[in-house]
Amino acid sequence: MRDFKARDFSGDHRWLSINTATVRKQGNLLEIAEACVRRGIGAIAPWRDQVAAVGLDAAVRAVRTGELALSGYCRGGMFPADPSKAAEVRDDNRRAVDEAAALGAVCLVLVVGGLPHYSRPGSAVSKDIALARSQVEDGIAELLDYARKAGMPLAIEPLHPMYAADRACVNTMAHALDLCDRLDPARTGALGVAVDVYHVWWDPDLQAQIRRAGKERLLAFHVCDWLVPTADLLLDRGMMGDGVIDIPRIRGWVEEAGFAGWSEVEIFSQANWWERPMGEVLDTCIERHRSAV
Amino acid sequence: MRDFKARDFSGDHRWLSINTATVRKQGNLLEIAEACVRRGIGAIAPWRDQVAAVGLDAAVRAVRTGELALSGYCRGGMFPADPSKAAEVRDDNRRAVDEAAALGAVCLVLVVGGLPHYSRPGSAVSKDIALARSQVEDGIAELLDYARKAGMPLAIEPLHPMYAADRACVNTMAHALDLCDRLDPARTGALGVAVDVYHVWWDPDLQAQIRRAGKERLLAFHVCDWLVPTADLLLDRGMMGDGVIDIPRIRGWVEEAGFAGWSEVEIFSQANWWERPMGEVLDTCIERHRSAV
Repeated sequence: MRDFKARDFSGDHRWLSINTATVRKQGNLLEIAEACVRRGIGAIAPWRDQVAAVGLDAAVRAVRTGELALSGYCRGGMFPADPSKAAEVRDDNRRAVDEAAALGAVCLVLVVGGLPHYSRPGSAVSKDIALARSQVEDGIAELLDYARKAGMPLAIEPLHPMYAADRACVNTMAHALDLCDRLDPARTGALGVAVDVYHVWWDPDLQAQIRRAGKERLLAFHVCDWLVPTADLLLDRGMMGDGVIDIPRIRGWVEEAGFAGWSEVEIFSQANWWERPMGEVLDTCIERHRSAV
Repeated sequence: MRDFKARDFSGDHRWLSINTATVRKQGNLLEIAEACVRRGIGAIAPWRDQVAAVGLDAAVRAVRTGELALSGYCRGGMFPADPSKAAEVRDDNRRAVDEAAALGAVCLVLVVGGLPHYSRPGSAVSKDIALARSQVEDGIAELLDYARKAGMPLAIEPLHPMYAADRACVNTMAHALDLCDRLDPARTGALGVAVDVYHVWWDPDLQAQIRRAGKERLLAFHVCDWLVPTADLLLDRGMMGDGVIDIPRIRGWVEEAGFAGWSEVEIFSQANWWERPMGEVLDTCIERHRSAV
């Protein structure tokens, strides 16, 4: 890494953001926001269902009152679908852009969807992942026009390959950046990627692709940890430091490439962290942000 | 796929091989071999522990008596380790080569290992996957000399990225073929890959990498299916046709690149196929080989 030094997180948690799914079982969005503010956490990343549960207006008020930044808004996407669902996909994603803008998010995170019958239930059963990928590209292209007008950057999140069928058929940084290069060749900042260490840590090409992304494309940085064994494909993410990912190394690469934003903790943990009190989870996030990120 | 036509499997099962882990709970290797012969299955791929349980001599006799081919032998590898374990790693892998040769296997399948403390327990805990990968390359390089003399081709099996930490840190065809190109630039046939659809189906680069591999590098072809949902990271593989993988498409790519060998069924299925009678599982493999591969 030559002479590059990443930001020092050990002394405070000014760059910590909490993805609110991390404590989604312990309280509603207003309670989570309040608990974050009380701990001096400066940013959150809420999910649409959490916003809907309290109402967009109340969510906006909570964010403003707490002077919270939004490191991202989760989520747009789920593009692959039967043609009959095109309007549903378009309108749903435009609403996501509008909500993200109302909340003042840094970006709208895109989980692009897998095969159409998982992405948009009711679509015909298909094994054609190449077709799903072309539908993703078309969907992002269309949404990008709308998002540009709203001033809302779109962050494609490559998901781990184990989610290729049912959640996202974009599974590597290289693939996500190919899409960015085709749809936003001028690197305007309107389209980029969300780098989640959980999804990409295994990729031998990761460092090179982070460099390729550069500052204009690096819109979000998410952390948690990969546990061995992993008991559940979706809901057994680990707290930073409890698994096998060399998170500081990846953060170094991201920052060397120009990223200087929030480090967002996103942990889905049915059997462990979702079972603990909200305060304990948030305090642990703060501690591990300082010691293991 | 232009005018290329893959082999027609619909009329018989002459190209079917059974990886004996598929029915490992239902009987020992001799019983499995006998049940395969009785059904006109022409090839198997046994695991080392199954051979050890009946003794190498008895296994060799069963294979010869049944006139069974071996589409592969499972498995060598697990290279990352503390330096103090170097002799253990070397000797263990040489024994695997010798056993594969005694049994007349087409190739020795390499599951290369993940981080050293998982690959060879007792090694120091590490998060350095790049170092593990360099140990894999060194380990294969050393074993290749031995395997060449024994006339035993080595097949690197890229495993799904969800196994990067604990089973294999080579997770893409591109990475496996990079190793092949560096260690066997002359494409002698001594080093290649085992393509298992379960591990690589998600890769947007798959078709291109299969072409790159070509006949000389395509040493084995394994089939099963990816289930949605997948209940267990290791032991919930599906029978061909029950999941989301477009297996005929991938077989077409492999055969167009020159592969003309066995189609090996390898299913680890704790809650389903391992619970059924051996005969039912094998008969289903035959039926799906004809209809879904």
